[in-house]
Amino acid sequence: MKTVLAEIITIGDEILYGQIVDTNSAWMGTELAKIGIRVKQITSVSDEAGHIVEALDSAKTRADIILMTGGLGPTKDDLTKDVLADYFHTELKLDEQSLADVTTLFKNRGFELTELNRQQAFLPASCKPVRNVLGTAPGMWFEDAGKVYVSMPGVPYEMKRMMTDIVLPQLKAYFNPPSIIHKVIQTVGIPESMLAERLDEWETSLPPHIKLAYLPHLGGVRLRLTGIAEQAGQLEKELETEVNKLSALVPKHIFAYGEVPLEEALGQLLKERSLTISVAESCTGGYIAHRFTSVPGSSAYFLGGVVAYDNKVKMQVLGVKPETLQQHGAVSEATVLEMAQNIRHKLGTDIGVATSGIAGPDGGTPDKPVGTIWIAYADQHGAKAKLLQYNKNRQLNIEYTALAVLNLVRQSLNIAVDE
Amino acid sequence: MKTVLAEIITIGDEILYGQIVDTNSAWMGTELAKIGIRVKQITSVSDEAGHIVEALDSAKTRADIILMTGGLGPTKDDLTKDVLADYFHTELKLDEQSLADVTTLFKNRGFELTELNRQQAFLPASCKPVRNVLGTAPGMWFEDAGKVYVSMPGVPYEMKRMMTDIVLPQLKAYFNPPSIIHKVIQTVGIPESMLAERLDEWETSLPPHIKLAYLPHLGGVRLRLTGIAEQAGQLEKELETEVNKLSALVPKHIFAYGEVPLEEALGQLLKERSLTISVAESCTGGYIAHRFTSVPGSSAYFLGGVVAYDNKVKMQVLGVKPETLQQHGAVSEATVLEMAQNIRHKLGTDIGVATSGIAGPDGGTPDKPVGTIWIAYADQHGAKAKLLQYNKNRQLNIEYTALAVLNLVRQSLNIAVDE
Repeated sequence: MKTVLAEIITIGDEILYGQIVDTNSAWMGTELAKIGIRVKQITSVSDEAGHIVEALDSAKTRADIILMTGGLGPTKDDLTKDVLADYFHTELKLDEQSLADVTTLFKNRGFELTELNRQQAFLPASCKPVRNVLGTAPGMWFEDAGKVYVSMPGVPYEMKRMMTDIVLPQLKAYFNPPSIIHKVIQTVGIPESMLAERLDEWETSLPPHIKLAYLPHLGGVRLRLTGIAEQAGQLEKELETEVNKLSALVPKHIFAYGEVPLEEALGQLLKERSLTISVAESCTGGYIAHRFTSVPGSSAYFLGGVVAYDNKVKMQVLGVKPETLQQHGAVSEATVLEMAQNIRHKLGTDIGVATSGIAGPDGGTPDKPVGTIWIAYADQHGAKAKLLQYNKNRQLNIEYTALAVLNLVRQSLNIAVDE
Repeated sequence: MKTVLAEIITIGDEILYGQIVDTNSAWMGTELAKIGIRVKQITSVSDEAGHIVEALDSAKTRADIILMTGGLGPTKDDLTKDVLADYFHTELKLDEQSLADVTTLFKNRGFELTELNRQQAFLPASCKPVRNVLGTAPGMWFEDAGKVYVSMPGVPYEMKRMMTDIVLPQLKAYFNPPSIIHKVIQTVGIPESMLAERLDEWETSLPPHIKLAYLPHLGGVRLRLTGIAEQAGQLEKELETEVNKLSALVPKHIFAYGEVPLEEALGQLLKERSLTISVAESCTGGYIAHRFTSVPGSSAYFLGGVVAYDNKVKMQVLGVKPETLQQHGAVSEATVLEMAQNIRHKLGTDIGVATSGIAGPDGGTPDKPVGTIWIAYADQHGAKAKLLQYNKNRQLNIEYTALAVLNLVRQSLNIAVDE
């Protein structure tokens, strides 16, 4: 069984200088894996002809497929097309379909076609053009010595559309790759090393074509089982057996199977139990509401919330008592409990949650340093609050607090409690 | 003048499979650029000893500094430490400081030190350990044939802390690099090709040590001028002169200088004019509030908001008239105008904005397909609404709508109007 290997080359100084995070490659890796193609290496190179050629020469020693993104724009720093024409000893010629596409695109946007954009319709003679219905730069598909080279724009939505509509189906037809299947198991409340000790014996017993990986992240440890085989059906069954064995070893730490974010797992549970939820946010400033509403269909259980950044809003909209704010301050157990209970009543939901804290980087006091955050949960049985103490990083504080609130709801609903 | 070049090697199948987006490299590129070190290439390789060695061999032909992340965890798929010990012909020995650190860390977390974690304190004898105060895996600093190799954990906050506290200062001292300065100019409302035509003559006249790059993204086109020189002071002046020339060519399309997000530029302007703002969100579900409150100090102008996901919340909390919802529906000009006006009154702010639409992927009707979104802006002079029509991608719809609202506020405040 031959594994079909791909390499991704991203072209552009902006990635090297850190001015753009390369999200394209992760998306491509995921989509390629779905059709059984494994990404062997991702290489990000600068906007220099020599460097692009070096990366191509290196990639073709390892991979069957070389996918390039970037460097196709209309400006002087975009070199990919010229480099590829040279690399495959061919010349640029006008592609009528591409010219028609770019002319239409400009017309629809209410602009006249510029000379620079007209030049984008000139492509290397030996390539098959890959149509770009969302932007001005067509892609290019080359075949050489049994390998396939595809060049696409770096603009994520243009690249994704091109991959989905054209490149992935063509690669599947061309290479007929074996099956790679991933199973993701998501855990919380147990550190990586402890998890590893518990899984050690089972992991050692895995057959050679199935591998386990530990992927720790902010909210827990994701486990990924990867199998490769000729027959997808047989492999699927083998993986299911292994997932069952794994599940039996850490039953109470698993909150989801598959790439399901915590808010989605939580949403599923709320929906199953016909429960509704609302949020009253101070320091998280709408982020928890955003997490809930990122999930399609969340309107079934998430009714709404109040972002009470200012104390006036806490009093006038949420009905927090002025005495509470005066006696205890906005960042206090008493305030956050009132917020959770009041939002629950005001919006008529089964559950209400709330946050109030000092997200930072400034605004702390000796008593309540930056990173002091209260969260609360309220339902028909009552309300409870929890004090968190984080650091000075505003974004992390918002992120951790949202996670802690989602976890508090999860624990309260007994999705998974610590063993 | 010798440019000091670095390469980044990220180790781990999770990046190749697309299960993690590599945000580390962008951060490292930015931080290295600040001290005058240029990233020449970023390479992501698999958890295979041979592949890691191949990447090291290749990187050292191009770069002075090789920075590695990942593969330092306590589990079987973490190979970096063993590979490096072999690569530099040395053996693992216990590092007492690292053992003390990991023991303390576990104690603070309330866990007992496991054997797997104890093994993390064994390091190649020829390396200088790089202390990790936030996690269990110490970093490693090797010097070989005038080149520096640093291995760090892949966990972003651990790597960042290590880089900031130890690695960056040591690299600066070791290589004494020339100055690289970036200037970012952010534009909106003009397509890349038109911008390029307007800047063409000036761009051609740039001296060879100053380069221009176009970085188009969701919200506009970022321009980046990059200069490299021995003397930072002189280069800074040259770049300022060029930025002034550029600004004169597209004066009304620039909304910020530097890596300032639109919400921060907007916040600055609101603060300068002593204006306050509130938001009433339906389809954006708290995301606009989140964007505003991501900016430190935003409590000076952002007072709060209501996430009115359910129609009951639109009526009971925001006071939208039942007749309006009955006659026009939630996704309508009439509803969104009431939402913007009412949130402004309810929270007593100078400006109120609102969104109501069908974010998708489901929930559309023939009349109002998925992606139909109304946004509104209200101030003392009145209110205006705008209809947006996007596609079926929920995340993009939320993102684009937030951007459109921020833009609507920007335009209303005349930060930059189209020429």
